[in-house]
Amino acid sequence: MPSLSKDVVTASAPAKVILFGEHFVVYGEPAVVLAIDKRVFATVQLRKDDRIYVSSSDMRISGTFRGGKFQAEKGGSEARLKLEPTRSAVQQVLTKAQKKAGVNVKIKSDVPVSAGLGSSAAVATSTIVAVSNLLGTELSREQIFQMAYESERVVHGTPSGIDPAVSTYGGMLEFQKGKDFIPLNIETEVPLIIGNTKLQRSTGELVASVRRMKEHYPAIIDPLIQIGGKIALGAVGALRNNNLQAVGDLMNINHAILGAVGASHESLERLVYAARKGGAFGAKLTGGGGCMIALAEKRKLKRVCTAIERVGGTAFEARKTDEGARVES
Amino acid sequence: MPSLSKDVVTASAPAKVILFGEHFVVYGEPAVVLAIDKRVFATVQLRKDDRIYVSSSDMRISGTFRGGKFQAEKGGSEARLKLEPTRSAVQQVLTKAQKKAGVNVKIKSDVPVSAGLGSSAAVATSTIVAVSNLLGTELSREQIFQMAYESERVVHGTPSGIDPAVSTYGGMLEFQKGKDFIPLNIETEVPLIIGNTKLQRSTGELVASVRRMKEHYPAIIDPLIQIGGKIALGAVGALRNNNLQAVGDLMNINHAILGAVGASHESLERLVYAARKGGAFGAKLTGGGGCMIALAEKRKLKRVCTAIERVGGTAFEARKTDEGARVES
Repeated sequence: MPSLSKDVVTASAPAKVILFGEHFVVYGEPAVVLAIDKRVFATVQLRKDDRIYVSSSDMRISGTFRGGKFQAEKGGSEARLKLEPTRSAVQQVLTKAQKKAGVNVKIKSDVPVSAGLGSSAAVATSTIVAVSNLLGTELSREQIFQMAYESERVVHGTPSGIDPAVSTYGGMLEFQKGKDFIPLNIETEVPLIIGNTKLQRSTGELVASVRRMKEHYPAIIDPLIQIGGKIALGAVGALRNNNLQAVGDLMNINHAILGAVGASHESLERLVYAARKGGAFGAKLTGGGGCMIALAEKRKLKRVCTAIERVGGTAFEARKTDEGARVES
Repeated sequence: MPSLSKDVVTASAPAKVILFGEHFVVYGEPAVVLAIDKRVFATVQLRKDDRIYVSSSDMRISGTFRGGKFQAEKGGSEARLKLEPTRSAVQQVLTKAQKKAGVNVKIKSDVPVSAGLGSSAAVATSTIVAVSNLLGTELSREQIFQMAYESERVVHGTPSGIDPAVSTYGGMLEFQKGKDFIPLNIETEVPLIIGNTKLQRSTGELVASVRRMKEHYPAIIDPLIQIGGKIALGAVGALRNNNLQAVGDLMNINHAILGAVGASHESLERLVYAARKGGAFGAKLTGGGGCMIALAEKRKLKRVCTAIERVGGTAFEARKTDEGARVES
């Protein structure tokens, strides 16, 4: 991205949904993920000192990093952990640019946080693009991805890299552990509804509980996980053929298999069934949080949203976007 | 069963639940079924004419068969179809006994009808035992089973034979298409809660819809059905080891796979999740109707019942019984 030094730069990066493959990806099965037209915006400007100030209006947290120290402004003791990846993002660009400078970062988001929609990776990615543009440092997509991945590692240990990849490149990607991301270049429109149970769930705990099931009942859970992989690949074929009904059927089957390994929840079932009754092709939980997705004809999107809201969820429409991280202004 | 000719005889037969294997049994996978301590009672007496009068207080139907003709007393035009298996049961015993006689049959049931709990087979079985005892005709268990199976065929085409087998023999049985029933002789107590959504569902339509899924997505549905078989066999092992927690886990997995092939329903999910939250080891839909079962420690049975009732179901406790069809008086 060619860039000129400016006073204030805003960049954005898309959120993601996992269409197929959450949980099973941990065991080597393919996942299909896509960028949606809901974005995180990072607005950055240089400071006169060498501090890094980060504020997120959506998370209601803010604070200042100075060397190894952190001073919370809003959000108390939890603020540091939540803002650390953003600090890391800024720091990596400064290091790459070989500059010593202070930066203010303001984050605004179209998507709910901690909902499994990849908002934290989108924060890191948009921050990296904004800061590199601010400093006039050119970064390749690959470099942006690597830095965003590194920022996630600060708090998430060894993430799959799905989230920063989607935020960086946009579009639809196939991912399999230990392999490169494959851009799917699928032209089919993917009109989605994202429903949120507003239930906070720990992805880490869910992953651990799936692992326990697998350890207790390997003869049953292992083949189920393999079927999960077949579903993901079958869905890629159905998407290429523009067969949204088949994609929906496969979403329904995938959802049930996720239930079989213990990854679903009563509230998710309620929203999933409501979406199906509301006329969706299919519906399933997505990611490791409290969200679900439904696929529907465009003319039915509103009806499905309403159906989800009637049973206590929040819902919004989302489409696949091919626009990865970008400078906004 | 040795018997003397009497004026009035009451016999009973147990209802059944499918613990594992509904739907998948159609495709050759094993099923585990058991008789529960809820029974259907048939009270019979000889008439002075050659008519067969049948009344079912639970179904609120009654009517008289005379040769090939039927006269409804209660229940209108649908009464004939519902009472025909009972007529067939009586007729078979009369033929076997080489007697020409009229019989009154009064049916009372502990279990809801059309709920997938095998009440119609229990009606036929108890009627056969009662009439044979009334006439002083001895029948072996095998003969009772064959006659009850024949009665079911009158209206159900080619049933699996699971229901009349459980009603006749009692206990827990393993069944696989084309093979003999295997009595499981498991000593483990099986404390169950049966929850009823009160939703009338057509078993035939459900079976057809599972078949459609299998035809559309064989690469995915076929292995899922095979996993269903593994679950049933795994559960037999867990029952032999008195490991009810494992049986419960396997029920949960089995339920999810039934959901994957399209055999579940929103109302069933609500009851199943309520039972699990109420402290059950596990819960799943049972049979092809609107009922679910939960397995729980004895001290938690009431709590699980209440949990199911709170979300709109009816619920009752049931245990495995080894008592098959029997004369009551």
